[in-house]
Amino acid sequence: MTKHIAILTSGGDAPGMNACIRAIVIAADRQGYQISGYLRGYNGLLDDQRITLTCERMHNLLQQGGTILHSARCKPFTTEQGLQTAADNLSKASVDTLFVIGGDGSFRGAHALGDIWDGQIIGLPGTIDNDVAGTDATIGYYTAIETAVSSIDKVRDTADAFDRVFMVEVMGRHAGFLALHAALASASDYVILPERFTDERDTLSQICKQIQQRQAKRGPVSYVIVLAENVWPEGINDLCVKLAKQSDMEVKPVILGHVQRGGSPVSQDRLLAVQLGTYAVSLVETSTSGVMVGTYEDKAVTVPLPQTWEETKPLPDDAVTTMTTLMNERYQ
Amino acid sequence: MTKHIAILTSGGDAPGMNACIRAIVIAADRQGYQISGYLRGYNGLLDDQRITLTCERMHNLLQQGGTILHSARCKPFTTEQGLQTAADNLSKASVDTLFVIGGDGSFRGAHALGDIWDGQIIGLPGTIDNDVAGTDATIGYYTAIETAVSSIDKVRDTADAFDRVFMVEVMGRHAGFLALHAALASASDYVILPERFTDERDTLSQICKQIQQRQAKRGPVSYVIVLAENVWPEGINDLCVKLAKQSDMEVKPVILGHVQRGGSPVSQDRLLAVQLGTYAVSLVETSTSGVMVGTYEDKAVTVPLPQTWEETKPLPDDAVTTMTTLMNERYQ
Amino acid sequence: MTKHIAILTSGGDAPGMNACIRAIVIAADRQGYQISGYLRGYNGLLDDQRITLTCERMHNLLQQGGTILHSARCKPFTTEQGLQTAADNLSKASVDTLFVIGGDGSFRGAHALGDIWDGQIIGLPGTIDNDVAGTDATIGYYTAIETAVSSIDKVRDTADAFDRVFMVEVMGRHAGFLALHAALASASDYVILPERFTDERDTLSQICKQIQQRQAKRGPVSYVIVLAENVWPEGINDLCVKLAKQSDMEVKPVILGHVQRGGSPVSQDRLLAVQLGTYAVSLVETSTSGVMVGTYEDKAVTVPLPQTWEETKPLPDDAVTTMTTLMNERYQ
Amino acid sequence: MTKHIAILTSGGDAPGMNACIRAIVIAADRQGYQISGYLRGYNGLLDDQRITLTCERMHNLLQQGGTILHSARCKPFTTEQGLQTAADNLSKASVDTLFVIGGDGSFRGAHALGDIWDGQIIGLPGTIDNDVAGTDATIGYYTAIETAVSSIDKVRDTADAFDRVFMVEVMGRHAGFLALHAALASASDYVILPERFTDERDTLSQICKQIQQRQAKRGPVSYVIVLAENVWPEGINDLCVKLAKQSDMEVKPVILGHVQRGGSPVSQDRLLAVQLGTYAVSLVETSTSGVMVGTYEDKAVTVPLPQTWEETKPLPDDAVTTMTTLMNERYQ
Repeated sequence: MTKHIAILTSGGDAPGMNACIRAIVIAADRQGYQISGYLRGYNGLLDDQRITLTCERMHNLLQQGGTILHSARCKPFTTEQGLQTAADNLSKASVDTLFVIGGDGSFRGAHALGDIWDGQIIGLPGTIDNDVAGTDATIGYYTAIETAVSSIDKVRDTADAFDRVFMVEVMGRHAGFLALHAALASASDYVILPERFTDERDTLSQICKQIQQRQAKRGPVSYVIVLAENVWPEGINDLCVKLAKQSDMEVKPVILGHVQRGGSPVSQDRLLAVQLGTYAVSLVETSTSGVMVGTYEDKAVTVPLPQTWEETKPLPDDAVTTMTTLMNERYQ
Repeated sequence: MTKHIAILTSGGDAPGMNACIRAIVIAADRQGYQISGYLRGYNGLLDDQRITLTCERMHNLLQQGGTILHSARCKPFTTEQGLQTAADNLSKASVDTLFVIGGDGSFRGAHALGDIWDGQIIGLPGTIDNDVAGTDATIGYYTAIETAVSSIDKVRDTADAFDRVFMVEVMGRHAGFLALHAALASASDYVILPERFTDERDTLSQICKQIQQRQAKRGPVSYVIVLAENVWPEGINDLCVKLAKQSDMEVKPVILGHVQRGGSPVSQDRLLAVQLGTYAVSLVETSTSGVMVGTYEDKAVTVPLPQTWEETKPLPDDAVTTMTTLMNERYQ
Repeated sequence: MTKHIAILTSGGDAPGMNACIRAIVIAADRQGYQISGYLRGYNGLLDDQRITLTCERMHNLLQQGGTILHSARCKPFTTEQGLQTAADNLSKASVDTLFVIGGDGSFRGAHALGDIWDGQIIGLPGTIDNDVAGTDATIGYYTAIETAVSSIDKVRDTADAFDRVFMVEVMGRHAGFLALHAALASASDYVILPERFTDERDTLSQICKQIQQRQAKRGPVSYVIVLAENVWPEGINDLCVKLAKQSDMEVKPVILGHVQRGGSPVSQDRLLAVQLGTYAVSLVETSTSGVMVGTYEDKAVTVPLPQTWEETKPLPDDAVTTMTTLMNERYQ
Repeated sequence: MTKHIAILTSGGDAPGMNACIRAIVIAADRQGYQISGYLRGYNGLLDDQRITLTCERMHNLLQQGGTILHSARCKPFTTEQGLQTAADNLSKASVDTLFVIGGDGSFRGAHALGDIWDGQIIGLPGTIDNDVAGTDATIGYYTAIETAVSSIDKVRDTADAFDRVFMVEVMGRHAGFLALHAALASASDYVILPERFTDERDTLSQICKQIQQRQAKRGPVSYVIVLAENVWPEGINDLCVKLAKQSDMEVKPVILGHVQRGGSPVSQDRLLAVQLGTYAVSLVETSTSGVMVGTYEDKAVTVPLPQTWEETKPLPDDAVTTMTTLMNERYQ
């Protein structure tokens, strides 16, 4: 009998979610599967808001940001009743396989659903924060780096013109992947990461020391700092005021915000999305379930869903070493 | 005798300032003029910080954001003593013509200098705000629109995915050019302009009415509002809170900030910069002085410096009409 | 009675056609008009292939390249029989107003149709070539400049790295607008335009002379030439071979090709598209017909259709002067 | 005693070469090394054309395409005499370590030099073609994919508007990395790769079959084919003519050409460049020599220089499988 697969996108949207939907739909169509999409994340599962996804509809979709299935938070889903309703709706619709594109919160929901629904559940990592263990990268992450970097490139122009200090806040929830790589790729002078942050005073005095060393060598200088969100206890404005006072320079804040969530996905996100989507569909006829597909050393792999949030994903050593090398001034 | 021309960039930096410097230098070199650049706006004039500008140095400069001459505010320049020092330094350096690339504040300074220095003074409009009378456009304005629009394009992706309201604050000082054109070109649903803003309550209720009409027709909708800076009395966060309360929707703020000042200039800014720079140099052998060169109906013109700030530059009628047409829902 | 308007896109596609369709549809919807779109240019008129256009369908369309109505050439339309079929179909569908977005070829067709159909016909200029008289700019033209310029920016990187000569062919049919403005905005060293081209030998020797002068001053140099299509009698490869021989340098050809026709429209094209689309709809209740809407000195105007092809649109004087100034080496 | 390191860029230029130079210079400066750059690849080594590289010079360099050290072919270097001159010049200049950024041709030269010069030689892979064994990616490769993909995105707009077939030729020398990944990331319908190409007739009939199947299902369709350079025996124009004849559709060629070599590097190339550059400098105090630094599974590694050209680097299995899955129509 023809398999029936269903897809939903959940949690914060990320560029490449549409590319992933497209890859799943085309690969599933090649197998002759029936394909549905639930709207607005788990809400669509509760309300049985479902659309048919066809190859024709996938045309010209790969390059679009956002998600045509929409996304949303869904508190009711996490209740016992909510999960039961979802399971019932999946059974009524004769869904064999549910693909959940989202982050660790979405995977917790999927895992709980797996306890009461016996269909196949496969997660695909879609978040700009890259804070999902078990995969080297998440769909949307590369585009968010690019957006942050091209914004910082622009900020540097004006920082240079005025020899000013700029503090740029990037997203990442509680992980520093985006901040670290955006800082490295934009030639930023300093980066404040959740994984490495120890102390307000240390941070301020390190930055001031570097600025003063450069001023001593070169006269007026510009200086760009990347700040991961949720790190500085009192927020970016407080940090700017304190740094301005201590460095005796003008310090301007820039909060990149939700711009980082949108946009046409860059190639690396498109490639990741089609790789994972195609691989996920290849699992449909197998007994694999309750897993996320991810990449490890450029190959598609599966990991049990709980591993995606139980383990902490460390920043890559090489990038940390590189940033440390490049941002430390030479003292002699 | 060979003419000696000098260039400085002053006020907020704008993409295309380098393209303008390049055009001036090459056009002046073709005439055999000697060419200097003062550093950090009027500060360089006071400290006699001056560099020689050559055609070789102009290679690969047109496309760079920022300004290689740097910019800065300069309070001391506006004092009687400051102006005198500047005039003396220009005379000592045998400068014949001073080109000032900047906004109306910079032109006021140039005009005051003209009272005590008898050399030729020519202003070129460089600001992203387009708030200089006497020219249809200012260098940097087109790029700022593009930056704002491509950011709003990204915001719309995430607004659509979540059916959310987003409020995007763009620059413009006290003029609505950037906000109006960014809103029009990004298919934004509403725009709040200094020139048209009347009342908090009216604005809020108009927006809420539109949102409710669309929800009535289509179910959940996204909605993007462009807010010009300095319009809403209590700031963007206050507006978001009030609108969220009144519309019963989530309203997210995005402040584009200094990203709008940087970046490689788009073609239209490059074209404007080279047109004005080349035209300005063609005036060197004439008696024209104390003017700004601008464009009027696509042709290069000159206007007396005081006109650039004494007159108020109105928003273009066509754009206002178009925005009004497109953003008004049909009620029937 | 409710007016019925219909839209078609014809001739070479251009970025911003969708933005124009959107503006027409929204503005027409505000008036309560019925709105149809014919598919594949005049072919859809002959086959009565027509779709209903709604505001909902316009969401997220402004920023998309191409045309959702598709375009195509249509030889049969230009026959007497074809025109009659088209007129009959329009009458049967009770169309009051036909909007034709395209270039001068499309307008000739529209004009001929006007002789036998008594409905209202309004043209809107959509072509990357800007070769339509009666309007300062055409929809798609600004994006094509930007695409050409950002490609030439990339070519210059590699030209500089290798100190090579590059010859970049841009579109424009038989007009030099795109080539001239792309050359100016990309700091290209030379441009070959249909309006100014006189003689192969002269052109070659001018270029060689400039290259040699620079080499004399600076040693190895890069050199970028913009060539308008259809100018060099034997084509770009012939030109490269001849120039290589005469200059004794490596000369590489780059043909930008159809890449110039696509892409998300830049802001200026979006603004032009919504201005003209909205203005065109404002004419529906008037007796104006057989005209193209265009911009003249930034204001929307109408011109009789025949004027769009009978008159020759000259290159703007200012741009020609600027290019001449910047590309001529100083001889002393 | 202070180490003296020297850098050169050789072979085809690639975006990110400047980012790599910057990383080497800053990391070396942190160690207190003396740093030189040879101009125009091995030519500078033969002519002893050498500049001092400082941290100040590195400011704002990371994001620039091309290479400030210039590149060029250098036949004389590969002769016995050339190698000897190079070795002598390195010794005279007391260079301890030579960094060569380039492709396999450049590494052959470096390896030969290693036979007669006893300093340390370290290669860094810089080429858009990714055809260097021993590293997962080469500097410039990611940007070239992005440039190709954003060009194909534009081509698809016009392909869709006209329901046409487009054939897009991308670079890659004799490897299909760029073509395969550009095709996958641009949702292209077919790709012709050197590693998989067997037969002209088979290729043509596969393409025609797919086009006809789609036309049967959907009516007029667009179709985009990516062609790796140097694969089709008689060139792209021949292929277009043959395909047009056999498919009875219009087939347009687009040759992306040297545009692919330039441009500001995308984030992934910047990250690769700074990772490899920093790692290379960390080897200066070790006895490692005659190696290329590369990445393997995201970690920096070294491989003996000969391995970079003696081994054939296969296309990644996952990408091949994904492309095969997505481009095969379902037959039922």
